[in-house]
Amino acid sequence: MIELYTWTTPNGEKPVIMLEECGMDYELHMVDIGANEQFSDTFTAINPNAKIPALVERSRGGYAEPVFESGAIMVYLAELKGQFLPRSSPQRAKCLSWTFFQVGNTGPMIGQYHHFNDAADERIDYAVTRYRDESVRLLGVLDQHLRTNHWLAGDYSIADMINWSWARAGMDELSSHGASKYDALADWVKRIGERPAVRRALDKLQDAKSSKG
Amino acid sequence: MIELYTWTTPNGEKPVIMLEECGMDYELHMVDIGANEQFSDTFTAINPNAKIPALVERSRGGYAEPVFESGAIMVYLAELKGQFLPRSSPQRAKCLSWTFFQVGNTGPMIGQYHHFNDAADERIDYAVTRYRDESVRLLGVLDQHLRTNHWLAGDYSIADMINWSWARAGMDELSSHGASKYDALADWVKRIGERPAVRRALDKLQDAKSSKG
Repeated sequence: MIELYTWTTPNGEKPVIMLEECGMDYELHMVDIGANEQFSDTFTAINPNAKIPALVERSRGGYAEPVFESGAIMVYLAELKGQFLPRSSPQRAKCLSWTFFQVGNTGPMIGQYHHFNDAADERIDYAVTRYRDESVRLLGVLDQHLRTNHWLAGDYSIADMINWSWARAGMDELSSHGASKYDALADWVKRIGERPAVRRALDKLQDAKSSKG
Repeated sequence: MIELYTWTTPNGEKPVIMLEECGMDYELHMVDIGANEQFSDTFTAINPNAKIPALVERSRGGYAEPVFESGAIMVYLAELKGQFLPRSSPQRAKCLSWTFFQVGNTGPMIGQYHHFNDAADERIDYAVTRYRDESVRLLGVLDQHLRTNHWLAGDYSIADMINWSWARAGMDELSSHGASKYDALADWVKRIGERPAVRRALDKLQDAKSSKG
């Protein structure tokens, strides 16, 4: 059985979407990051970096290596099921490129924009502008690619799933700052959001959060 | 032939180290990011995100898909050569977890610290402190793991190579802010830096930069 430790954030949504797309059985453990539960000894034994999501597969009765970082979890599940990550290049290389693009770019940059725009105690215009401009640029890179590609890397893949949560959050927060012109990206965000597996994933996460609270 | 587009930065070093560790033939194309060469049409045709490093393999005479993002390049080369990334889990999952850890954490956070501490026009204490503290914490996660593990994920792997450049930069910049106590990390940084392949990689990069200038 796959045990997933997660929460209702863009990074936390990704593996739930993948598990639903693959039709896998799994158990959700909700780690309330608002209550600092990610710093518990139980959780840091799974991810020493104290960040959700993380996964443990216990199906064979014995100890299993934890998998942490949403990108690693997506590749792990794709290879476990043989789905949503092409087995050979150039398709595989393209899928990996767009997967790492999310992890190293839109995740941290939109995350920092969110911090300085909504969460920081001080208003620091320099930082808000820095992360807003870079986030809008990055969404533009996705939009430009999606103008001539239905999905990011050939067929629908982990590259689409992993980019979706942050692109959706970015389009919500940055539409009044230039992102509203990204029609191809908006269409792709909408198209993925309407997939039954994606809707099930978000519903299950909200239900699990409510049950916990 | 592997053609690598890169520069003398932590991200730019990673694939050169991997190519040297694998003993592969390759051609270096130096993209001077100080002169904004990453925004050229030639380069953005390879990486639409306009960031080094990026790779194209042209060995079979025809068109080959570009690979961009240092993490994707490391996985691509590891699978091409069957080296430095275990083929099955739990070892593979561990290697992927620590590989993505670098891409989503030390890279962006030490990068932002560097920006606010050294490059920004304004001195913004809030941002310097934010990124310094998070970078020191992340280096501590690596140190804690390396206290009981000789390498990050079993044998020496892409997880070590990809984490090395940023950990080395972080230890240099943050030793007076708490990182100097990370003995296990310092030992691992030194041990990797002394590997012949790593020394060859850094020398070749410096030579290529000098030839260009």
